[in-house]
Amino acid sequence: MEGSRPVTGIDDLPVRDELRGKSPYGAPQLDVPVRLNTNENPYPLPDPLVERIAERVREAARDLNRYPDRDAVQLRTELAGYLTRTGGHHVGIENVWAANGSNEVIQQLLQTFGGPGRSAIGFEPSYSMHALIARGTGTGWISGPRSADFTIDVEASVKAIAENRPDVVFITTPNNPTGSAVPPETVLALYEAAQAAKPSMVVVDEAYIEFSHGKSLLPLLEGRPNLVISRTMSKAFGAAGLRLGYMAAAPAVVDAVQLVRLPYHLSAVTQATALAALEHTDTLLGYVEQLKDERDRLVTELRAAGYEVTDSDANFVQFGRFEGEGAAHAVWQKILDRGVLVRDNGVPGWLRVSTGTPDENDAFLDAVRAIKKERNA
Amino acid sequence: MEGSRPVTGIDDLPVRDELRGKSPYGAPQLDVPVRLNTNENPYPLPDPLVERIAERVREAARDLNRYPDRDAVQLRTELAGYLTRTGGHHVGIENVWAANGSNEVIQQLLQTFGGPGRSAIGFEPSYSMHALIARGTGTGWISGPRSADFTIDVEASVKAIAENRPDVVFITTPNNPTGSAVPPETVLALYEAAQAAKPSMVVVDEAYIEFSHGKSLLPLLEGRPNLVISRTMSKAFGAAGLRLGYMAAAPAVVDAVQLVRLPYHLSAVTQATALAALEHTDTLLGYVEQLKDERDRLVTELRAAGYEVTDSDANFVQFGRFEGEGAAHAVWQKILDRGVLVRDNGVPGWLRVSTGTPDENDAFLDAVRAIKKERNA
Repeated sequence: MEGSRPVTGIDDLPVRDELRGKSPYGAPQLDVPVRLNTNENPYPLPDPLVERIAERVREAARDLNRYPDRDAVQLRTELAGYLTRTGGHHVGIENVWAANGSNEVIQQLLQTFGGPGRSAIGFEPSYSMHALIARGTGTGWISGPRSADFTIDVEASVKAIAENRPDVVFITTPNNPTGSAVPPETVLALYEAAQAAKPSMVVVDEAYIEFSHGKSLLPLLEGRPNLVISRTMSKAFGAAGLRLGYMAAAPAVVDAVQLVRLPYHLSAVTQATALAALEHTDTLLGYVEQLKDERDRLVTELRAAGYEVTDSDANFVQFGRFEGEGAAHAVWQKILDRGVLVRDNGVPGWLRVSTGTPDENDAFLDAVRAIKKERNA
Repeated sequence: MEGSRPVTGIDDLPVRDELRGKSPYGAPQLDVPVRLNTNENPYPLPDPLVERIAERVREAARDLNRYPDRDAVQLRTELAGYLTRTGGHHVGIENVWAANGSNEVIQQLLQTFGGPGRSAIGFEPSYSMHALIARGTGTGWISGPRSADFTIDVEASVKAIAENRPDVVFITTPNNPTGSAVPPETVLALYEAAQAAKPSMVVVDEAYIEFSHGKSLLPLLEGRPNLVISRTMSKAFGAAGLRLGYMAAAPAVVDAVQLVRLPYHLSAVTQATALAALEHTDTLLGYVEQLKDERDRLVTELRAAGYEVTDSDANFVQFGRFEGEGAAHAVWQKILDRGVLVRDNGVPGWLRVSTGTPDENDAFLDAVRAIKKERNA
């Protein structure tokens, strides 16, 4: 009898021990008027770009029966051109690799340079996928320190690297979810420490760099073969739905990840769509300028309303501070009750809000001002 | 001085030991008139489908600033419907998972059920990515036996499972590169052996099942929670460029792989394109019938020309036998010299040819007949 059969659950399957009792990563996908929780770009793609995507995908679709260009030559050439134009450093196709989101780039790097019997370090709180991808690739994870103001404490971090001798070091700049950029001197100090300890690979995650007050660390690649800069088209290019991440590094690093990449990992439609978006770089970077202004307004207005705010170089802002067990999550719920979804990243006392359109930001600011008033009442 | 700086090679980087000296997977991508080397479907997508893809991608592109549906609900629903209609077994969305090619499905399965300290077995020669993805996920690899006629020797295979107690068992049916399907009784015997030994997961790779004289093993899922059937849209759907693989299994298996899948791994354009292709299933399966006829013609004509041919249930044919060290590769080169690219998969004495259009197959048959004549002259 169908109904009486016992239902098999995850725990009945021979899954790896370290996965037991875990939940899949991902922010709640709630149907809310104002969604400021996943650091998406709030601007839909402009019509001419939508048309260009349809056109390039139509061309690619004719030959969809054939495998895509395994080495994504045209796409990597255009990405190299973009980095050269905007990053203050010449980058060639031999320096660039692309994958389905920077998560896949990071997974490939950990499969190549991390993995069983090896370890990676990140300075937390930071982008939590670094630790999760480490787990998924069998790489040991070391939670490195961070100062109370969420900057990287160079002395403590160098010590952590020297003591743990990790194979991979992650530095996220601007950092997510806290928002501020890491000074180049700090990255250099950590790179030197990592080379002295092992040597190990240093992965600088610049997912949000286009929103920064400062500059990309691309010029640091010169003469540093164990340095990798990872990037994404999800944020500045307003293309989170495209899943296109990439990295710049020494050619040998690009060669090395090809030993673990799944062949033909980047579909022909992904390559076509990314190429269309790269044709519209100037328009998309125009949105970035608007978003930077709005981000700065969020910082100013939140502070004026009596909140603490971490300096932000990203398209999001970390605000607080909410004292007491569960206080941040209670505020998250109150903001949600007012129709605005922000993110509780689990940093005690703090929440994160993505920069939206001016109207969305007004709705958010109205909500947090009202909540502040209630608390003070 | 730029020119005097030593160039960093892979061996100068701290890559994992097991990757040293290895080459990336992938068939040579040569510019040849007739390409019958990667088991692609030779028919370009029909115009109405190309237009529908452009239309659905245009719709999806407007909101490309947002992350895609992380759970790919609509796509998995349609894939479940396709499997139910064609597979002789009811499959619901809760049974289906999709990723960027069946390679990524297999990678997720090995991350969940294999990995460091665990092992997987395949019966070789078979799809070589199984072993490579095992290596990439830190899973030990066991090369299981196969009979001289390339069928699975049940007794020897059951013994190999009992002795090695692998965590994952791969069975490819129809097998690649040899071509013939595995009888359901063999799969059942191996499944029972795998459960008695560990218990372990059994992954049946049905990438080419739509071309088989026999039926899908989907009905075997009933009451077997440790069984997985993997599929792809690369072959029967003529969409190798799309990179869409999927699997059917117990709902708990679908839940389990979500613990290792990268969030938002399937882009909005991939989901839109796959949905468009699924609307045109009947047309695409019509091409499959033509290809099956042509595949049977290749078998008949190759045998008539004096070649040995393994029975084929796939869209490719394994032919030989070429005696002596390097003999198969020498014939591969002679066929290439006549403008036809086939595949040397490294099976001693044998080559593999994909079924092309009637004209492409004629070109191939002319080439191998001429080569036979030369050898006999």
